[in-house]
Amino acid sequence: MAYKLTYFNLTARAEQIRFLLSYLNVDFEDYRFDREQWPSIKPAMPFGQVPVLEIDGKIINQSIAISRYLAKKAGLAGNDEWESLLIDVAVDNIYEIRQEIMKYHHEKNEEIKSKMYDQLVNEKITFYFDRFEKIVAENGGYFVNGKLSWPDLYFASILDHLRSVTEINLVDGRPHLERLKRKVLAVPQIKSYIAKRPVGDP
Amino acid sequence: MAYKLTYFNLTARAEQIRFLLSYLNVDFEDYRFDREQWPSIKPAMPFGQVPVLEIDGKIINQSIAISRYLAKKAGLAGNDEWESLLIDVAVDNIYEIRQEIMKYHHEKNEEIKSKMYDQLVNEKITFYFDRFEKIVAENGGYFVNGKLSWPDLYFASILDHLRSVTEINLVDGRPHLERLKRKVLAVPQIKSYIAKRPVGDP
Repeated sequence: MAYKLTYFNLTARAEQIRFLLSYLNVDFEDYRFDREQWPSIKPAMPFGQVPVLEIDGKIINQSIAISRYLAKKAGLAGNDEWESLLIDVAVDNIYEIRQEIMKYHHEKNEEIKSKMYDQLVNEKITFYFDRFEKIVAENGGYFVNGKLSWPDLYFASILDHLRSVTEINLVDGRPHLERLKRKVLAVPQIKSYIAKRPVGDP
Repeated sequence: MAYKLTYFNLTARAEQIRFLLSYLNVDFEDYRFDREQWPSIKPAMPFGQVPVLEIDGKIINQSIAISRYLAKKAGLAGNDEWESLLIDVAVDNIYEIRQEIMKYHHEKNEEIKSKMYDQLVNEKITFYFDRFEKIVAENGGYFVNGKLSWPDLYFASILDHLRSVTEINLVDGRPHLERLKRKVLAVPQIKSYIAKRPVGDP
């Protein structure tokens, strides 16, 4: 399999794909383009968006679907249908609060944006991240069934970006999430990917 | 397996779950509550949201994850990992434009909302639905690989609700999507579910 990932020089929506490809120990082209190049790249993208992963020449969009495909190959997507369900639920819960944070991030009206911040931080983030902390506490330090699965990688992969958007370290004061983050970043293949990844915005 | 679906008396986020449970020919409790009951139900929901599906007493949230689980049981989730990837991509593309339409629907500021409408209809909906039309035309009348899979059921299940929100019949002038909708609604188990479903808002 030949893999080429196309995305901005950001973690954002692509970092869990890079984590999974690294975890799989496969060579992949990590193609990162500059913002100025985007208008010339966008029209060739299936739904006008990135990231896309080219798999043996076929261009695939939708970062979560791509991640699930790679997670299956990595043995991180569940051992039976029930476990896969719990894993998909965990991913979608994480995705949902990420979307809320991005809705705030992309709001252009500064007055509305500043009103959104309070509700985002004090209500939505607290609600989701306190639940995540409880789930990880009750599941032996992981999102699902006491062992590493792709929601753990997904969660750890977005924290730097969410911190830069919210200006809050979201695992601060949530020791189980903090430990989970450290465990994922200490996985040898991921640690080695991070050590060599280009410096960009988070 | 004992299934109990809990949701408002709406199609919205739950209808594809009802389609899939019907397709599976399993008995399920289709519990529909009134808006006034919501404040008393909400605190018991895992992430404060519905729909949830109770499976043998375990309460599961996230409608898309639930649907994928049921779709696997129904043989509508792909015959190999590549086909499952294409199916997941199709679902997430549909989900994405649905979310854009819901963002418009939930905007409370009438002035902003009316500005959003033009862009939603003339840019976003046209962009996605024209692509869907092309995909279905090129795939023998279905979203993936010329045969029924769960993106087809998901797509058909949300059209009435999207029509009520946008006041547009989104398959109008898109003959392949129109035919796909009719094919899904003519599946005997789905036809029979629709004939007996309670009348609610779409």
